[in-house]
Amino acid sequence: MRETTISNTVLERLAIYYRSLKRLEENKVDYISSKELGEILGISSDQIRRDLYDFRMDISYYHDFGVRGRGYPVSYLLKILEKSLGLNNNVEIALIGAGSLGGALISYDEFKKIGLNIKYVFDINFNKAIRDLAGIEFYDVEQIDEILTKNQVKMAIIAVPAKAAQDVADIIVEAGVELILNFAPTYIEVPNNVMVRNEDLSIGLIGLSYYLSNKESELTFVKNLG
Amino acid sequence: MRETTISNTVLERLAIYYRSLKRLEENKVDYISSKELGEILGISSDQIRRDLYDFRMDISYYHDFGVRGRGYPVSYLLKILEKSLGLNNNVEIALIGAGSLGGALISYDEFKKIGLNIKYVFDINFNKAIRDLAGIEFYDVEQIDEILTKNQVKMAIIAVPAKAAQDVADIIVEAGVELILNFAPTYIEVPNNVMVRNEDLSIGLIGLSYYLSNKESELTFVKNLG
Repeated sequence: MRETTISNTVLERLAIYYRSLKRLEENKVDYISSKELGEILGISSDQIRRDLYDFRMDISYYHDFGVRGRGYPVSYLLKILEKSLGLNNNVEIALIGAGSLGGALISYDEFKKIGLNIKYVFDINFNKAIRDLAGIEFYDVEQIDEILTKNQVKMAIIAVPAKAAQDVADIIVEAGVELILNFAPTYIEVPNNVMVRNEDLSIGLIGLSYYLSNKESELTFVKNLG
Repeated sequence: MRETTISNTVLERLAIYYRSLKRLEENKVDYISSKELGEILGISSDQIRRDLYDFRMDISYYHDFGVRGRGYPVSYLLKILEKSLGLNNNVEIALIGAGSLGGALISYDEFKKIGLNIKYVFDINFNKAIRDLAGIEFYDVEQIDEILTKNQVKMAIIAVPAKAAQDVADIIVEAGVELILNFAPTYIEVPNNVMVRNEDLSIGLIGLSYYLSNKESELTFVKNLG
């Protein structure tokens, strides 16, 4: 277990590096330099080296052991990031809300690939199509407390309408959840020992919208934002 | 039309401020200080003031005109951000891929609230339920070029599987699209005049996963990350 504490900004970038390396590995890329990775992501190579160094990954090690001019071995860097980010531990996640967004999250294969398994799904309406998916247990919202407590679930995704989000948060926190990814477009209040990350699908479109309305000005937006 | 060019990082934060103020407005909050907004978002109040200042929004103006101790008027700050970010111009967006994620994006009400309208939807399989939604035109992928060219669509969302993403990108760019939000878990190549923003739904869960596996260490993660 690592003892490093890192800022959210760095953590976000490490997650982006990880996902990017994962894509590169799937595309059969064996080696990559910080310069090449930086160009893909629109992040400076200095920043990448600094982030990995701050996260106690001494890149000079790879420089020494990697093949000169080729960069770092993708699979090895992936393994280190994976371990440090606590991935591939087969974390069981609860999802509350199986509407259209919840359904999309259930079908999103990328989570499973990194050991994050949406296993317990709760909704007020049972949906037959979703209920039959392999590896997923589907329950009525009335059973949240019982199921999460029994299975000691610590991580949950909220994908219910805004007006139901706080009630859901109260129930899952009471049942022992400590980490929440909130897709409901509202803020939720939680005790100090619980972490909430709010996801907002419109942030990306807002960024593009800015550039659409500023076409005449010089564009400084990087091409591939992670 | 503004001539300011701002970094992606600042743009991302401005989008987050905008969305946050929008939520506050819906919750009937009339005034907010940079300190309060900072606490909600886990961003320092200095940073917030600096971002708004850099974006040519002179906050001292609000300080002078706002009611002392109350902070900025939420609705006024929203209007300025809205204008500067190029929102509420009723932008017509094309969506390619109406699978589970595409379907969720179509039903995501938050886009419409800020004038971003998914109007043209393309898929290889026609889905009757989705086709009947008001205000959305549903077409076969064969018609992408014809429809996007005719309607001069500049912004598009890719929500197809990874292996189809590059082909889709080539077709929409050929049809005149200049801004792409890519949900496919792969990188796509585009000409220099086209901007791509890659969205990865797993970044948030990876962040939470790090904290789950580092429970013993001191948690520095801010509670509400936007």
